[in-house]
Amino acid sequence: MTDLPTRVTINEDGPREGMQIEKAVIPTSDKIALIDALSQTGLREIQTVSFVSPKKVPQWADAEEVIAGITPRAGVRYTGLYLNARGLDRAMATGRLSIEGGISLSASPAFLMRNMDMTPERQRETRREMIAMFKASGIAITKASVNAAFGCNFQGDIPLDGLLDTLADVFALAEEAGVTLDTIGLSDTMGWATPPQITRTIGAIRERHPDQALSLHLHDTRGMAVANAWAGLSLGVADFDTSVGGLGGCPFAAHKGAAGNLCTEDFVFMCQEAGIETGVDLAALIEASELAERIVGHPLPGAVRKGGSLNAIRSGLSR
Amino acid sequence: MTDLPTRVTINEDGPREGMQIEKAVIPTSDKIALIDALSQTGLREIQTVSFVSPKKVPQWADAEEVIAGITPRAGVRYTGLYLNARGLDRAMATGRLSIEGGISLSASPAFLMRNMDMTPERQRETRREMIAMFKASGIAITKASVNAAFGCNFQGDIPLDGLLDTLADVFALAEEAGVTLDTIGLSDTMGWATPPQITRTIGAIRERHPDQALSLHLHDTRGMAVANAWAGLSLGVADFDTSVGGLGGCPFAAHKGAAGNLCTEDFVFMCQEAGIETGVDLAALIEASELAERIVGHPLPGAVRKGGSLNAIRSGLSR
Repeated sequence: MTDLPTRVTINEDGPREGMQIEKAVIPTSDKIALIDALSQTGLREIQTVSFVSPKKVPQWADAEEVIAGITPRAGVRYTGLYLNARGLDRAMATGRLSIEGGISLSASPAFLMRNMDMTPERQRETRREMIAMFKASGIAITKASVNAAFGCNFQGDIPLDGLLDTLADVFALAEEAGVTLDTIGLSDTMGWATPPQITRTIGAIRERHPDQALSLHLHDTRGMAVANAWAGLSLGVADFDTSVGGLGGCPFAAHKGAAGNLCTEDFVFMCQEAGIETGVDLAALIEASELAERIVGHPLPGAVRKGGSLNAIRSGLSR
Repeated sequence: MTDLPTRVTINEDGPREGMQIEKAVIPTSDKIALIDALSQTGLREIQTVSFVSPKKVPQWADAEEVIAGITPRAGVRYTGLYLNARGLDRAMATGRLSIEGGISLSASPAFLMRNMDMTPERQRETRREMIAMFKASGIAITKASVNAAFGCNFQGDIPLDGLLDTLADVFALAEEAGVTLDTIGLSDTMGWATPPQITRTIGAIRERHPDQALSLHLHDTRGMAVANAWAGLSLGVADFDTSVGGLGGCPFAAHKGAAGNLCTEDFVFMCQEAGIETGVDLAALIEASELAERIVGHPLPGAVRKGGSLNAIRSGLSR
């Protein structure tokens, strides 16, 4: 356990990941309330909304209204998701979001076709357009991301070589554009990863890209998210995407009703108990998770919200 | 990951752990159907019922009827839970159960008082009575068990020294009785364990008891069960109690509605993907989990039942 980081960076994805998959229409004011509650917990980065086509994801037709309605808190970075130049344009137009430049490719051609109706060649083309937009707007491009990095419901297993090849494609795009990336983000979009695969994959990427920081985006589709996060932490990974209450899922994947993302409060709890600093007030986070559950109107998967934090029990006993 | 076992022994606790916590009365025939379904999955050991006072756990007033109703399958060991000589007597009287001799103590005096209304001294007395009964019946006594091994909602943290002292008490009882134990079982009765604590604890116990096999009974109260199991597997632990669908919980603990035990199908899935043999047919196990969910009449926490096994997706894609 000697490689455990002393602190972790948490990117809260709950609002964006959570709302897009709900069937009921979530009022704009509820989305704003959740983002504002999360900003009071010590979380430093919140992915708020998605700038995608309202035809594909109707729940985010009000993305601009939500951003206009939040009460920004100093020290918190608010971000949005965009998958193409049009979305990036909308995100920049809000004037309130941190725009992070990155280059993202899918390791699964089948998922890409199903999800975005495009070939890998076409995806690289769209990435060139976005890189040009980032550069024209003076936005630094720092992160290499691969989604469906560990497996795909439409493609099957993603062999390690396939992942490394996709990553090589990302770095080739960066080199072509004269850009230096510093972080590799791996997204387990459809919940295929297991701890041994996380361990193997991180080892191989470290060998090939020793200077890159690593970041993990984990889904709990098959109950592995916390164990996968622990496998990552054990190898020194210190940057995680999480979702309050375990909100989320993937609207394009084939597992309706399956669990969502790595749950923020369960992850924060594990880090606290392991002595890893998160900067997050777990009690406030559990309250935000209760709010999230009330907003979506159905039980959320996270466990610590129901089980209670140990620090709460400890301080009750010591009274 | 070099210490991963090549195969694991799974003791399915779902029927016993699951039914005792349900508020609705579960018909005897449903209990029998679940046990029989589980016996068809490749599981080799099933803890079926609890021989405790019907006043304390009314759901097991029909323990004898359930045992009389199952269809025993060759190669499957059926066990029952008993906490005292009266319960052991009832278990033996069924004539159909494997009776496993063991010595079990609680690492938490506060839990012991709350749960059993007895002091540690009194608990040791009751253990002497049970040891005498095992010996009188020719039952081998092989397992040392400690419950509340990692922490307790009424006592707080169980320091490692406290756990080791409790374990020393168990071995002192064994020595006093001239009995040689071969396995140490640790029960995280109230879901306090986290992966670093599992790692630390197993290291310390291995140092003090190098010849003992280890066994883990994990609760998912705070979402750590799968990660804790992975921490155990990584250190070579090859014997786990699990519950189909994540059935269970602890009726005497203070966290109503909290998640139950390490979920059998999620654990089996993780083992399969890690190349660890379980002997279990995951598809059949998922069907048994669906049956368990229908029987209790509310959603169960396990994830793989909803997310689907990867082997099912793989074989669909290769068709």
